[in-house]
Amino acid sequence: MNIINRLNAADPGFRSALKKLLDWTSVADTGVQTTVDTVIQAIRERGDEALLEFTAKFDRLALPSAEALAFTEAEIDAAVARTPDNLLAALEAAAVRISAYAERQKMQSWSYTEADGTVLGQQITPLDRVGLYVPGGKAAYPSSVLMNAIPARVAGVRELVMVVPTPDGVANDTVLAAARVAGVDRIFRIGGAQAVAALAYGTATVPAVDKIVGPGNIYVAAAKRAVFGKVGIDMIAGPSEILIVSDGLTDPDWIAMDLFSQAEHDQQAQAILISPDAQFLDRVAESVTRLVESQPRADIIRTALADRGALIAVKNLDEAIALANEIAPEHLELSFAGAENRLSEIRHAGAIFVGKYTAEALGDYCAGPNHVLPTSGTARFSSPLGVYDFQKRSSIIQCSAAGSVALGELAVVLAESEGLYAHAQSARYRVEGNR
Amino acid sequence: MNIINRLNAADPGFRSALKKLLDWTSVADTGVQTTVDTVIQAIRERGDEALLEFTAKFDRLALPSAEALAFTEAEIDAAVARTPDNLLAALEAAAVRISAYAERQKMQSWSYTEADGTVLGQQITPLDRVGLYVPGGKAAYPSSVLMNAIPARVAGVRELVMVVPTPDGVANDTVLAAARVAGVDRIFRIGGAQAVAALAYGTATVPAVDKIVGPGNIYVAAAKRAVFGKVGIDMIAGPSEILIVSDGLTDPDWIAMDLFSQAEHDQQAQAILISPDAQFLDRVAESVTRLVESQPRADIIRTALADRGALIAVKNLDEAIALANEIAPEHLELSFAGAENRLSEIRHAGAIFVGKYTAEALGDYCAGPNHVLPTSGTARFSSPLGVYDFQKRSSIIQCSAAGSVALGELAVVLAESEGLYAHAQSARYRVEGNR
Repeated sequence: MNIINRLNAADPGFRSALKKLLDWTSVADTGVQTTVDTVIQAIRERGDEALLEFTAKFDRLALPSAEALAFTEAEIDAAVARTPDNLLAALEAAAVRISAYAERQKMQSWSYTEADGTVLGQQITPLDRVGLYVPGGKAAYPSSVLMNAIPARVAGVRELVMVVPTPDGVANDTVLAAARVAGVDRIFRIGGAQAVAALAYGTATVPAVDKIVGPGNIYVAAAKRAVFGKVGIDMIAGPSEILIVSDGLTDPDWIAMDLFSQAEHDQQAQAILISPDAQFLDRVAESVTRLVESQPRADIIRTALADRGALIAVKNLDEAIALANEIAPEHLELSFAGAENRLSEIRHAGAIFVGKYTAEALGDYCAGPNHVLPTSGTARFSSPLGVYDFQKRSSIIQCSAAGSVALGELAVVLAESEGLYAHAQSARYRVEGNR
Repeated sequence: MNIINRLNAADPGFRSALKKLLDWTSVADTGVQTTVDTVIQAIRERGDEALLEFTAKFDRLALPSAEALAFTEAEIDAAVARTPDNLLAALEAAAVRISAYAERQKMQSWSYTEADGTVLGQQITPLDRVGLYVPGGKAAYPSSVLMNAIPARVAGVRELVMVVPTPDGVANDTVLAAARVAGVDRIFRIGGAQAVAALAYGTATVPAVDKIVGPGNIYVAAAKRAVFGKVGIDMIAGPSEILIVSDGLTDPDWIAMDLFSQAEHDQQAQAILISPDAQFLDRVAESVTRLVESQPRADIIRTALADRGALIAVKNLDEAIALANEIAPEHLELSFAGAENRLSEIRHAGAIFVGKYTAEALGDYCAGPNHVLPTSGTARFSSPLGVYDFQKRSSIIQCSAAGSVALGELAVVLAESEGLYAHAQSARYRVEGNR
């Protein structure tokens, strides 16, 4: 068995092999859905009482009262104090860069006045209150706290509520420190579907929010899908992916490590390299084989590369870019000279890493743009998390007397054609009243 | 029984009465879901063949072949020719205004260069292909075709595919004419869950799209929810709503007719007036009683106003605005002098109609802003349909050699704290390679 799949776009079986490689569907387990529905119903009916029960059951954490669901300021202070200085400094430096980029994304209100005095516009407002889900245990990533919380803060969200499970009562200090750095207002030690339900519907202790963001396991994803409509949610993410296009002039060890940096996330993660240089692909395969040995997460990397990784030979960079657009990857690394001149040809990608110095890992942590990105080809229709996701638009229409006559006459014709006579009469009153 | 409910914000029972009035939840019928799942599965497995079968069954339209699923250019030409000139002119005039407003919404790509030469940016691209669902029969609204199609066109979507069921083979000429005016590329005579499934997964005849927008019945809504993730969807809309805040100085007949213009949509539609002038509320009640008699859709209006309509007395305009923010209405009419000075106090509303000349009906048809708006309080976290919904963002990161050193050092600290060692090594290579 190869350590990573080898494909050639010129082979007759290429299309079906690629399709198989890219195929990923989340397992729709009705057992999960039933559990989640039960949990949500219990939280809606019994609030804090049910929340304490589920936390005792799923996280093996018995709390004396609902008040204890929230981290105290003193607890957070202590976690910050325990965080190494250089790590705290790195979190703060990353936060500055993430904020600076987010500031550029802010939507601003605008309006314009027409010749007859009618004003049209769009008013931008932040969401009132946002809930941020942070996984507990192994997959607790402080960088995720920054990436989810900072855009909300920059958008002007009034209150930012974080939930993070603490299995067996164990909290992650760095996650709490990241929450402090990002400006999270309140933190509750809850997780799973019960935390999502509490955020969506509110309990006596946990306030109801307007939108829930952040990654989670399959129960969390199912709960977010279930409460969608009552509140807003961010995307439901699939496994992480990287697609690298190289001309063959980047150090093969660098490329191998970039592939690993996705593969180490998850056995289902996807890492693909496309190059017109077949010999370069051989050299990368050699680097992969050699370097994987010393990787602390070698087992995960091996499984991911064997199941969902590939080195793909193509005719030229044009063909590589066409393939990239077809795949619509979460992360697209353009590791070749002059890549910046071909950006306009990239139609679908979550984030684009331009040139050989731009390791995807830099974007994951501190370049500035968000690391919450559309996966599984959804970059065809969706976007990175951003300030936009925490702002909303209201249309503004202010007709002058003259404007209401002109628009009213038009509206009467259209409303009557649709059989909506009250619409027509409502418009006609303004026409007649201003003539 | 009152023709419309009367509430006073000062009454002890007000909060619970308001809650009851606003309460609306779509009926989650498992029968509907089962039917929809079966239909989607059949379209995925048998494509056009299943599409023809469902169209024969649900729309009572037997087509000779899959080719006949598409309207021909000649059929559309004929529909346009049958459309009255003044109606065609009104559609075109409305389209010009909707386009002009949409142009202001277009997101533009941007980038900035940091001191060390690192470039960060955001690249905007349109969706490749969009599907527009248009209901058939009674609720076929040409204005909806314009409102859904034009923002997609302005965004630069390459292909716009419309589906519209033709029960018993009857097509709506004005809907086809509106599609022509809006620049729709292809139109298929299909509807229901089968049309949504065909757009999401594609058949030999109907191309797979990246996003599906447009209103539909409960089967269409359930199908959109089911294919969400495979493709993007717009919001799932509830019944239409209007909330009017008046100081009591607008003609009560105007206000009554504005309430009707929502109520006539649907027996579940919601029409609420809030005013600090109790005598004015009496006068509006009198107008409602008198004017409803001559309304062609009087029965629908009566049911909607009795079940979900209200005239609410408040202390002053401040209290009215606070209530409006709590309700987060789809349409908010501010029918009082100086309303434009209080816009910044409005935190949640789909569209705001400012001043007594701005009948909501003008916005429904031709003012310019979209009439597809968040309902049922979802204006707390979502926005009107717009060009944004047909564009997407890709983050751009291009590190200079120096930039990759600075960012790499930061990334190493953060990646190691998360136990992601390949991330750290990938960053470290750039640090070492550029020192």
